[in-house]
Amino acid sequence: MTDPAHLPAGASAPGAKPAPDARRTTEDWWRTSIIDMSPGVIRYRGYPIQDLIRERVSLAQMIWLMTRGDLPTPGQAALLEAALMAAVDHGPQAPSIAIARMAATCGVGLNSAMASAVNVLGDVHGGAGEQAVELYEDIAARMDAGADEDRAVQEGLDAFIAARGKVVAGFGHRFHPVDPRSAPLLALVDEAAAAGEVNGRFARIGRAVEARLTAAKGKPIPMNIDGATAVIYAELGFPAPLARGLFCLSRSVGVLAHAWEQTSQDVRIKGPIPRQYQPTYDGPPQREVPRQA
Amino acid sequence: MTDPAHLPAGASAPGAKPAPDARRTTEDWWRTSIIDMSPGVIRYRGYPIQDLIRERVSLAQMIWLMTRGDLPTPGQAALLEAALMAAVDHGPQAPSIAIARMAATCGVGLNSAMASAVNVLGDVHGGAGEQAVELYEDIAARMDAGADEDRAVQEGLDAFIAARGKVVAGFGHRFHPVDPRSAPLLALVDEAAAAGEVNGRFARIGRAVEARLTAAKGKPIPMNIDGATAVIYAELGFPAPLARGLFCLSRSVGVLAHAWEQTSQDVRIKGPIPRQYQPTYDGPPQREVPRQA
Amino acid sequence: MTDPAHLPAGASAPGAKPAPDARRTTEDWWRTSIIDMSPGVIRYRGYPIQDLIRERVSLAQMIWLMTRGDLPTPGQAALLEAALMAAVDHGPQAPSIAIARMAATCGVGLNSAMASAVNVLGDVHGGAGEQAVELYEDIAARMDAGADEDRAVQEGLDAFIAARGKVVAGFGHRFHPVDPRSAPLLALVDEAAAAGEVNGRFARIGRAVEARLTAAKGKPIPMNIDGATAVIYAELGFPAPLARGLFCLSRSVGVLAHAWEQTSQDVRIKGPIPRQYQPTYDGPPQREVPRQA
Amino acid sequence: MTDPAHLPAGASAPGAKPAPDARRTTEDWWRTSIIDMSPGVIRYRGYPIQDLIRERVSLAQMIWLMTRGDLPTPGQAALLEAALMAAVDHGPQAPSIAIARMAATCGVGLNSAMASAVNVLGDVHGGAGEQAVELYEDIAARMDAGADEDRAVQEGLDAFIAARGKVVAGFGHRFHPVDPRSAPLLALVDEAAAAGEVNGRFARIGRAVEARLTAAKGKPIPMNIDGATAVIYAELGFPAPLARGLFCLSRSVGVLAHAWEQTSQDVRIKGPIPRQYQPTYDGPPQREVPRQA
Repeated sequence: MTDPAHLPAGASAPGAKPAPDARRTTEDWWRTSIIDMSPGVIRYRGYPIQDLIRERVSLAQMIWLMTRGDLPTPGQAALLEAALMAAVDHGPQAPSIAIARMAATCGVGLNSAMASAVNVLGDVHGGAGEQAVELYEDIAARMDAGADEDRAVQEGLDAFIAARGKVVAGFGHRFHPVDPRSAPLLALVDEAAAAGEVNGRFARIGRAVEARLTAAKGKPIPMNIDGATAVIYAELGFPAPLARGLFCLSRSVGVLAHAWEQTSQDVRIKGPIPRQYQPTYDGPPQREVPRQA
Repeated sequence: MTDPAHLPAGASAPGAKPAPDARRTTEDWWRTSIIDMSPGVIRYRGYPIQDLIRERVSLAQMIWLMTRGDLPTPGQAALLEAALMAAVDHGPQAPSIAIARMAATCGVGLNSAMASAVNVLGDVHGGAGEQAVELYEDIAARMDAGADEDRAVQEGLDAFIAARGKVVAGFGHRFHPVDPRSAPLLALVDEAAAAGEVNGRFARIGRAVEARLTAAKGKPIPMNIDGATAVIYAELGFPAPLARGLFCLSRSVGVLAHAWEQTSQDVRIKGPIPRQYQPTYDGPPQREVPRQA
Repeated sequence: MTDPAHLPAGASAPGAKPAPDARRTTEDWWRTSIIDMSPGVIRYRGYPIQDLIRERVSLAQMIWLMTRGDLPTPGQAALLEAALMAAVDHGPQAPSIAIARMAATCGVGLNSAMASAVNVLGDVHGGAGEQAVELYEDIAARMDAGADEDRAVQEGLDAFIAARGKVVAGFGHRFHPVDPRSAPLLALVDEAAAAGEVNGRFARIGRAVEARLTAAKGKPIPMNIDGATAVIYAELGFPAPLARGLFCLSRSVGVLAHAWEQTSQDVRIKGPIPRQYQPTYDGPPQREVPRQA
Repeated sequence: MTDPAHLPAGASAPGAKPAPDARRTTEDWWRTSIIDMSPGVIRYRGYPIQDLIRERVSLAQMIWLMTRGDLPTPGQAALLEAALMAAVDHGPQAPSIAIARMAATCGVGLNSAMASAVNVLGDVHGGAGEQAVELYEDIAARMDAGADEDRAVQEGLDAFIAARGKVVAGFGHRFHPVDPRSAPLLALVDEAAAAGEVNGRFARIGRAVEARLTAAKGKPIPMNIDGATAVIYAELGFPAPLARGLFCLSRSVGVLAHAWEQTSQDVRIKGPIPRQYQPTYDGPPQREVPRQA
């Protein structure tokens, strides 16, 4: 260990120079390039809100504008719509949806039911799209560096599995032998590529990953919804972490719908199973509390 | 007190008949009419997902389908798009946005940053649209019961203020003298009403509320974003609580964009103000801890 | 409607005087009487943290200090300990606990599993203690105003039921014919009252409510954990909303324990029921998507 | 890539054997060894709740019982109390506390204010204790494997910095030159070690890390609250992830106190800074929306 620089960014040990934020004003602390406001004025990325409304900018276009900095082309907007609308829900067996429904019976608003649910879309439940974009980008980078597709796919998969374990995000599904969302989503990408609206490179990479996994396993390991939306997000140039963010927006729709439906079913404090199904206890049998001092 | 029935729905006091849920199977406990799944099959409200994708159903149409049970007409979809895209963000001065940005510096994923933020869209920060729909519906019901518009508006406002206090949700703004989002949103409603796509009744009611408040106060109390989106949601027949749910979907877009922007600003554990601005302490001066037994 | 004052606190309509917060400095905006800090110094309510540690102040005493402003007496601290330790868990059938366990399988940290769970402790799942304190206080106020206990209890119950419906918070339980936590908690209150550490008034009121409900119903409606902890919180002078806050602290313990236990069970994305138990769908049968424009 | 096993645990590709959970009953799905309930009976880890109450088991003892499986000795309980009570709050400059206060002004309950706040105690804001326990355990393991303390500390720090970057969790503080909580906490550990209640090994390791960092940097890099509580948690045998969980319990106290105090300050929708301090916008200047198709 030669010289561990161990302090947080901005740390001020005795005698140290002022931390970076020590020179920031209050106004600068909340600096943003997304929204500019003054009394009577709201502009997103420079566009006055009233103009965006009048031009009938869609919700999906607005999502692009807010996260990317400018408006998408119509072709880009159409693909983003498809990725967002296709992943809204996977039923009450998904923890996110079950949580939304249980929360709705506990006396909190729809906002809080949505929050408890979206919150669990972490690396495992909500991160597959993000990880698949990373995988595709890694394979593309290997090809840019000179590898042919076969080698880039193999090396990319090896690296992914070494880093994250044997579940390759975006491929295979524990419920659906074939995910009915993948083919129509890829068809839209192919169409957009044929029209020159996107490159089509990541659709090819995604299919090559599917073929490789299927060959290695000796049975179909088809691309699932996360693998297909990741193709779209990669084609559209979204950074990988935004793939998770966009999935959260998408799944929020199903979360809201289920929380709302639950409120009509007249159940109070709904647990995961009806009361006659009691959890199994496998801890110690009844015993005496040792005398406390 | 003649006979308080004091037990929760489904309560089983000694000797009582089985609670309603005691006869439910596990499968029935998670009953839904939103999504039907079997291996390889996903249908939302009866529509196979692959068909919805191929027909290029938009995110806003999907939001309608999931919460309402069927697809909207094009005119309805366009108004819903407008209400959703217009409310995505109100800058880092809004607690929801500030929370998203702070959360993003604390080592949680975008999903959790979004959850902490959407969670606070409660009655005060996120409920104005819901309350404005309730107000409009109450006024409409008074007119249906025979009151003329003037009287219905006055009585509706009186009832609202009696129940919720002097802040009339949807009107006036503490930052914008005129909210730049209201006029173009109402213009879209007028256009849709002229085309027979919506009735236009709630636009009239909203404007009458604005006029009444302005007259009573002697200065402009213009309709704000919540009042305008509430007109749209009421015209489209959304129940009031869904107005809050839809606002949560809309604001989630800004929340995501700000959380994402924050991650590029390289700040760790960002507090509400730079470190040189210390909170003011107004509690007791330093004192000795009383000797504990 | 004579003059609706319709603007939010601090609203600035055109020409209005500056909003109250417009004169606040940044430092004052974050004013607190809980904690005073400067480099090297941390004082809670005036007590230096190192002195609190050295005096071996307990977690429960600290909870009191932070929420009430000063340290409790030993008798008060002991009752608070009991109320907090008795409500930590009610098993995976409680939505809060189920949510914590599902969240733990989704790739989020223990902090987020706890957040999703504590979040649902709303009016219905977490608010019974708060409501019971309100009921007790209302009955006490009626007695202070001259009513005898019988009448105060009856009127208090009538008012409660009129406002909140037939479920009287704190009494009866849908699972336990007799809640095993109530008697030993009340015994501690009796003991403290005998020692002059608390008044004992709210224990009497709680028992009177139990007797009244039981008589009215013709079968036992015993005080439950929420009714018993509410007796303690009322005896200790906690405002009603803090009863919910304290319950959240208490239940957080069970939430953490279950989230942690779940991580050892090696399940990914755990839904509410095993996969072979599919939710029941009761929506429309498969149908064609209408042609979109 | 030799044979990527790419399916999630429990995945069922076509023709595969049933997934592990496919043989689980509903009851077994919610298996736990923490709590055993039947009507009228609640046992935690085998101890009837009424016995735990009567023996006046403290909240800290209950935390131990629930997470560890049995009750602590008095010496263990005292150290756990200290670690929990010392970290309850670090003022409104901490995002967790600021979020709680802002949430409290938005119309959500204390439960939701707590949830939004605890949720952000992720790797960066809440994970330092967990990481410090990992560091200490890694150093201890190197010593068990034969390294002398000097080498084990150096190698442990090198490995930590290689994996996590230059901020060594638990040491140095960006606000406090010396953290006033560390010395009195370590003094309690020393006392417990002298009494044979804990080993004292991790206190030695923690101090050696502090010395090494200070020597390497040429100025004091003192142990902070996270480093000191991590010494306690490691001495008590808590697995590293529970250090974060316990910190969440501890900080929940401050979160609750601040949310509650905020409710008395009569602010609606409190943003991070008073309204006259506007965020700085650094995006594009006003521009025209391109004509949409």
